[in-house]
Amino acid sequence: MHEVTGFSFASAAAGIKAGGDDCALIVSTTPAQCAGVFTRNKVIAAPLVVTRPRIAAGRCQAVLINSGNANACTGARGEEDARACAAAVARQLEIDEQLVAVASTGVIGVPLPAALLQAAVPALCGSLDDGGAAAVASAIMTTDSFNKVVSRQVVGTGGSYRLCAIAKGAGMIHPNMATMLAFVMTDAAVDDTLLQPLLKRAVDNSFNSITVDGDTSTNDMVLLLANAQAGNEVICPGSAAADEFAAAVEELLLELAKMIVRDGEGATKLVQIKVCGAVDDVQAKQAARSVATSNLVKTAFFGEDANWGRIIAAIGYADAVVVDPERIDIFFDDVQVVRDGLSTGAQLEEQAGAVLKRPEFCVRVDLHQGNGESSYYTSDLTYDYVKINADYRT
Amino acid sequence: MHEVTGFSFASAAAGIKAGGDDCALIVSTTPAQCAGVFTRNKVIAAPLVVTRPRIAAGRCQAVLINSGNANACTGARGEEDARACAAAVARQLEIDEQLVAVASTGVIGVPLPAALLQAAVPALCGSLDDGGAAAVASAIMTTDSFNKVVSRQVVGTGGSYRLCAIAKGAGMIHPNMATMLAFVMTDAAVDDTLLQPLLKRAVDNSFNSITVDGDTSTNDMVLLLANAQAGNEVICPGSAAADEFAAAVEELLLELAKMIVRDGEGATKLVQIKVCGAVDDVQAKQAARSVATSNLVKTAFFGEDANWGRIIAAIGYADAVVVDPERIDIFFDDVQVVRDGLSTGAQLEEQAGAVLKRPEFCVRVDLHQGNGESSYYTSDLTYDYVKINADYRT
Repeated sequence: MHEVTGFSFASAAAGIKAGGDDCALIVSTTPAQCAGVFTRNKVIAAPLVVTRPRIAAGRCQAVLINSGNANACTGARGEEDARACAAAVARQLEIDEQLVAVASTGVIGVPLPAALLQAAVPALCGSLDDGGAAAVASAIMTTDSFNKVVSRQVVGTGGSYRLCAIAKGAGMIHPNMATMLAFVMTDAAVDDTLLQPLLKRAVDNSFNSITVDGDTSTNDMVLLLANAQAGNEVICPGSAAADEFAAAVEELLLELAKMIVRDGEGATKLVQIKVCGAVDDVQAKQAARSVATSNLVKTAFFGEDANWGRIIAAIGYADAVVVDPERIDIFFDDVQVVRDGLSTGAQLEEQAGAVLKRPEFCVRVDLHQGNGESSYYTSDLTYDYVKINADYRT
Repeated sequence: MHEVTGFSFASAAAGIKAGGDDCALIVSTTPAQCAGVFTRNKVIAAPLVVTRPRIAAGRCQAVLINSGNANACTGARGEEDARACAAAVARQLEIDEQLVAVASTGVIGVPLPAALLQAAVPALCGSLDDGGAAAVASAIMTTDSFNKVVSRQVVGTGGSYRLCAIAKGAGMIHPNMATMLAFVMTDAAVDDTLLQPLLKRAVDNSFNSITVDGDTSTNDMVLLLANAQAGNEVICPGSAAADEFAAAVEELLLELAKMIVRDGEGATKLVQIKVCGAVDDVQAKQAARSVATSNLVKTAFFGEDANWGRIIAAIGYADAVVVDPERIDIFFDDVQVVRDGLSTGAQLEEQAGAVLKRPEFCVRVDLHQGNGESSYYTSDLTYDYVKINADYRT
């Protein structure tokens, strides 16, 4: 784990949910530049209503996060609660409350126990630790089975800097970023105009290209904070340094995204659905999405059945994708099971069956219509998915 | 069961799949007027390629159906096989082979054992029985757990006539009509221009308003045959008799559609998702579809959890639907759990929990945006769904 200069972390048990830490705080020593991407769901949780304009204003110094309660569908009271909790952090840290972001995840429609969360703020502020990122990642888990944190040091032309990224999410995972929270901290110095478009693109290529169950939540949020403590030359748009920085952010987010799919509720496999040869990248993504979200395909993965008929059917019903069924090729890793829309025979299908026993593999579909290419990451659909989601609230 | 004058039915075991009948024949004594609705999947199975132009030509006298093999993704050979089987029926019945439709359901990508099917044709033609509709319904089942056949007598102003409708389908059920075959036979005399638009509308309001798993198959087909043997006055478009006839067809198809959802793979519940107060009917249907296809909603139904948070989230991410989260009302049957986007409290939620224990119930969502209204029928997502679909081919 690389520590990111000027960021510190804390977690605590506020008593919002039974057992273990359920709130966390991320603090920068100075107000950081920031960017955010938020859920596209029209039902927007209170913490997003409060946080979005603060991030849009361009500076953020602290992020308060809780699990166990989404503070969604909680009306005016929910927004007051979110503001009050942010204000408690601001008071304790002696900073402007507009510099405090809040994020929540958990059950929808139940008022946030704001008093419990506020009561935990002094403990959070009192235990801030430069090496506490993993503890934050643990505190914000809901149905996650492991915490998700990654870090990187970039040694570039204009100096070196570090990034650390934390995410939570296991179910309700789908574009766009369902019940998914992620926070990227970096000590890089960057130009103000760089962050927002860069984060948007990185999210599209990572969190918006994964699916566990096709649901989009009310609470999704990805924040990027850059506090310029590393002493590197300021990274400007269009420079080689900007490309390096964008690549680092995107790699970190894709790593987290794959961790989320691997941790998909009940999932036993991580499958890349790669569509190439589409008319363009948009059609490739649409086709990959259609395969990645098919329950029949996902149960076949669980059954370790190289059932390419379900894959080709999902390609065929993908909206607005140009397809010539007689030119479709399908591979499981390196094993070709379909050539020109027809089976390559029982022997290759048997070999493909062996590929499906792997915990990770790639289904590649070549449409032979152009140069469009895109990937989606998905999990298998298992008994445990049903069990987890049938039992979640009770 | 009402027998439909001039139609007879047969089923047989061709040996395409192990155990039980796997092929069936429907024959009219005279060439019947006909209409057809076919899958919108771009990967189209061979029997549809062969049958579609024949139905478009306006007359059909026999329908040969097999289960156990979809004859999809089988290339030129698949089409030859489909034509050859139809030709065998035509020869045996001494009718024009253009009057023979073929339909298949089962595994994709495996050549149709056409010789077996052709060998069964004499037995099929030799055992035609006016009362054999239920046996046909049984022979065309795949993962269905019960056969699906309904009938009705209409006594109208211009005389009486009868209708009988058969369907198969349990999984891969989704708009548009995934792995779903249905055949409607009537002895009514109807104007030639009446049938196709009438069937299209009836399918939209029935088979295209149900979902089990969100997949659309390569083989879906609904055929309507009318042989004018009842002696009623010819039913003309725009007449009261046409409305009666359309209502009868639509009711039969909706009955079959609900049977399909009730028989959804592993399903234990039939749930109507009714959205009202939408800007228009199209938006209502889009919103209902979003709820009906949510895996999180469907697992909550299985868990008998009145988890309206998942329902409101699914409403919120429905594409192109105007929603004001603070005006949404949600009911489970008569129990209101959400008013103006907020919980109505624990007591009503507990009452809603009792509704969810019912084998059939209605989730009603009122958006308060206009008069648009539409329904979708869905099932719960269960362990058995996963089991059936993980094991289906193996």
